[in-house]
Amino acid sequence: MDKPLSINGERLWQRLMDMGAIGATSKGGCNRQALTDEDAAGRKLFTDWCTAAGCEIRRDAIGNLFAVRPGTRADAPAILTGSHLDTQPTGGKFDGVFGVLAGLEVIESLNDARIQTEHPIAVVAWTNEEGCRFDTAMMGSAVWSGNMTLQDAYNLTDSDGVSVRQELERLRQLGDDGLSPLQVLASIEAHIEQGPVLETEGLEIGVVTGVQHMSRHRVLIHGVEAHAGPTPMNLRRDPSRALGEILPRLYRMSNQFGVDARLTVGIISTEPGSSNTVPGLLTFTVDIRHPDGCQYQAMVKEFERITGEVCAEQGLPMESHCFWRAPGVEFNSRCIDAVRDATRNCGYSFREMVSGAGHDACNVASRVATSMIFIPCRDGLSHNEAEYSTPEQVAAGAQVLLNAMVKLAEGQCNEARDSTTRPLNTFA
Amino acid sequence: MDKPLSINGERLWQRLMDMGAIGATSKGGCNRQALTDEDAAGRKLFTDWCTAAGCEIRRDAIGNLFAVRPGTRADAPAILTGSHLDTQPTGGKFDGVFGVLAGLEVIESLNDARIQTEHPIAVVAWTNEEGCRFDTAMMGSAVWSGNMTLQDAYNLTDSDGVSVRQELERLRQLGDDGLSPLQVLASIEAHIEQGPVLETEGLEIGVVTGVQHMSRHRVLIHGVEAHAGPTPMNLRRDPSRALGEILPRLYRMSNQFGVDARLTVGIISTEPGSSNTVPGLLTFTVDIRHPDGCQYQAMVKEFERITGEVCAEQGLPMESHCFWRAPGVEFNSRCIDAVRDATRNCGYSFREMVSGAGHDACNVASRVATSMIFIPCRDGLSHNEAEYSTPEQVAAGAQVLLNAMVKLAEGQCNEARDSTTRPLNTFA
Repeated sequence: MDKPLSINGERLWQRLMDMGAIGATSKGGCNRQALTDEDAAGRKLFTDWCTAAGCEIRRDAIGNLFAVRPGTRADAPAILTGSHLDTQPTGGKFDGVFGVLAGLEVIESLNDARIQTEHPIAVVAWTNEEGCRFDTAMMGSAVWSGNMTLQDAYNLTDSDGVSVRQELERLRQLGDDGLSPLQVLASIEAHIEQGPVLETEGLEIGVVTGVQHMSRHRVLIHGVEAHAGPTPMNLRRDPSRALGEILPRLYRMSNQFGVDARLTVGIISTEPGSSNTVPGLLTFTVDIRHPDGCQYQAMVKEFERITGEVCAEQGLPMESHCFWRAPGVEFNSRCIDAVRDATRNCGYSFREMVSGAGHDACNVASRVATSMIFIPCRDGLSHNEAEYSTPEQVAAGAQVLLNAMVKLAEGQCNEARDSTTRPLNTFA
Repeated sequence: MDKPLSINGERLWQRLMDMGAIGATSKGGCNRQALTDEDAAGRKLFTDWCTAAGCEIRRDAIGNLFAVRPGTRADAPAILTGSHLDTQPTGGKFDGVFGVLAGLEVIESLNDARIQTEHPIAVVAWTNEEGCRFDTAMMGSAVWSGNMTLQDAYNLTDSDGVSVRQELERLRQLGDDGLSPLQVLASIEAHIEQGPVLETEGLEIGVVTGVQHMSRHRVLIHGVEAHAGPTPMNLRRDPSRALGEILPRLYRMSNQFGVDARLTVGIISTEPGSSNTVPGLLTFTVDIRHPDGCQYQAMVKEFERITGEVCAEQGLPMESHCFWRAPGVEFNSRCIDAVRDATRNCGYSFREMVSGAGHDACNVASRVATSMIFIPCRDGLSHNEAEYSTPEQVAAGAQVLLNAMVKLAEGQCNEARDSTTRPLNTFA
C-alpha cells in the first residue's frame, strides 16, 4: 500500500475561519446567501487564494467558479472537486465551504510537495447550492450538468423580485466562459455529513455511495377569514384546524416508512396573520426523502392523499405542488473505490452510507463519474449557526480527498521530493 | 307607546360608502389600520361631517375623537355612542364604522327634526380598536376608561418599531383635551354582529346583554435547526411536530366546552423559514373565549396544560404568555332596557345575546352605564373584505340607536315640529 500524501491542516482550518468571517452572525454562524454582497466577497477571497496558488480561474455563464491546476498532459480532462460557498440565512461555517477549501488545500499540498499530475486538478465553487434566497437548490451544478436550462436559472427571483441574472451582472459574476469551461473526467465532493450518524458511531469518514430521492412540496389551504369571537366553531372554514389534522397524520405516515424516511415541515405561515381572525390562507412546505425509490414514491403519494383527504373532509379548497425534486443517485463505483482505498490507506475508520441531503455531486454525477466524502459534524447539526467539525475531522476529510484525487489523476510525475514530509514513489 | 323617531337611511348608507373609499382594497374591503395615513384621512372626513352638523369636536390625549351636540341643560352629562374607524389589514366597511356613523346619523336626525335633548348627545371614534398594527385591541377606550395607562398606550410599537405616541404626533391626532374631555351618563354602541346568529335566525336586531370572557396567548416552541435530509426523525427537536400534537388536542378541548366556546389559531410562523431546515422556532397565537367565566378559566387552564404537556413530552423548551385579556362584561340593565324598548317600539324582530367579540363598550362599561345594539351581517363575516350588511339592516340599527339614545337623554324639548315626518309629543 502506498504511503498517503498529507495536507496542511492548520492552513485549511485558518482559511475556513477566514471565510466564515464573511457574513458572520452573532451566534457564530454565517449568513452568506447566494449572489449577495457577502457571497461576492467570499468568492473574491477564494479566487485570490487560488490565483496565489497558481491556478487559472474560469467563470461560467451561471457564475460557477473553477480554479484549475494544470496537468502534465495538455488534453487530459480534469479531476474535479469542490462544493459551494453560499450558506443558509442562519447557516454555519462548514456546509459547502469545507468542500471548496479542502479542494484548494489539495492543490496547495500538491504545490508544496511539487507533485505534478497527468490530469489537471480543478476546484469548483458552484453558484446557489442552498436554494434559500433563490428557491432552487443546487442551481449552478444543475445548469452545468444540463439538468436545468441557463434561462430558467437566470429567471429565478428572490422575494424582492430580483433575478439571478440581475445579481450575476451586478456582482460581476457572469462569466464569459460559456457553460463548459472545463473537460472533466471524474469528480469527488467532500462535505460535512449534516447528520449524526458518523458522530454517533464514532467514525472518521463516510464513504458515500449515493443520495436519497427527495422533493419539496408547497401546500396552500384556503379558509374563510372570520372574527375569532362571534363565529361558532362549526360554521368556520379554518385552515389551522385542517393543519392540526394533517400534521400528525404526516408524521405517523413518515414513521411507517422506517428509519430512513425523512419528512420536514420547514415553513408554516398564515394570512392575514391576526391573532383574532381565522386565517384566510395557510401555507406550509413538506420536504420528503427516502433512499429507496419505490418507498419515496409511496411517501409522496401518501402525503398527497392525506392533505387532500383532510381538506376535502373540512370543505377547504387546497392546492399542492412540488416545487423541487431530485431523483436519488447511485455514485460511480470507481470513484467510490478511490475514496474507500484512500480512507483505508490513511488509516481512518469509516462506513459506507447514503446521503440524506442533496449535494451538487447529485447533478455532477449525471455528467461525469462522481462520489463523495463525508466528515462528522457536532450533534449532526447543519443549516444551523452552531454547525461545527473539529480541525482533526476537517483535516482527515481533506487528507482522504487529496489521496483519492491523486489516485484518479494517476500518471503524475513528481518534479521534486521532500523526503521529510512526502513519501517517495507515492503513485504507481 | 311613543311613535318612534326615524333616521335618514340613505344619508347613512352613502357615508358608509364614502368612508369605505378611504383605504379601499381591491376586493371591496378596507385597510385603514390605526394611526396610519388612511386612518387620519378617515378621521378628517368624520370630523368634517360632524362640524358641518354643528358638533363641537374634542380630541383627548390618546386621540379619541368626541363630536358633541349640546343639550339644553348646561351641566348635564352626555349620552354617548360611537365605535371605531380603524380596520383590520383585510377588513370591511362596517366593523366599527357603522357604529360611529350611526351615531352621527342620530345627531343629524335630531337636527333634521329640530329636537333638543336635555343631555348632550356625543359620538366617539375610539383610537385603535382593532389592535392589529399596535397589538392591543380597544386601546383608546381602555385609556379613557382607566383600564390602561396613557404611557403604556403611548409606548406600544408596530412591527417597524414606530410608537403610538409618534404616530399620534405625526398625524396631529394628539389632543390637548386631557383624558376626560366629556362627562358621560350612559353609552350605547351599535355594531355589526360579526357572527352568523341573527342572520341564521332571521332577526333584525340583537339586544346585547354582555360580552364573552376572552384572552389571547402567544406560544413559542424552541426546536433545533437541522438539515431536512440527514437528520433521522428520532433525533430531531422539531416544533412543527409538536404543533401537530397540540392543534388537534386544542380543537378537541374547545369542542368539549360546548357551542359557546371559541378557540382561534390566527398566527402560525416558523423560523428561519426554510423548506429544508427543521424550524428552530415556531410561534403561534391562541385566542380563547367563553361567555361563562368559570368555563373560560377552565379553557385557559386546559390550553396551558396541553401545550406544556406536548412540549415536555417532545423535549422542547416552550414559552406561553397571555398578551391580551378582557374579562367578560354584563351590561347595565337600564341601557339594555332602553335598547329593547326602542327595538320593540320600532317593530323590529330581535333576540338577546352575548357578544362573542370584544368591543370598546367593554371598556366603557367599566366607567359608565353601557349596552350595545347588533345588526346582522352577511354570512356572519367580519375581519374580512367581504363583510356586508344591507342598507335596511344598517338603517334599522341606527333607528334603534336613535330612539334608545333619545330615551336616555330624556327631558328634551322640541323646538319645532315637522308633522309630516316627525310625531308630536314624542317624549314625555
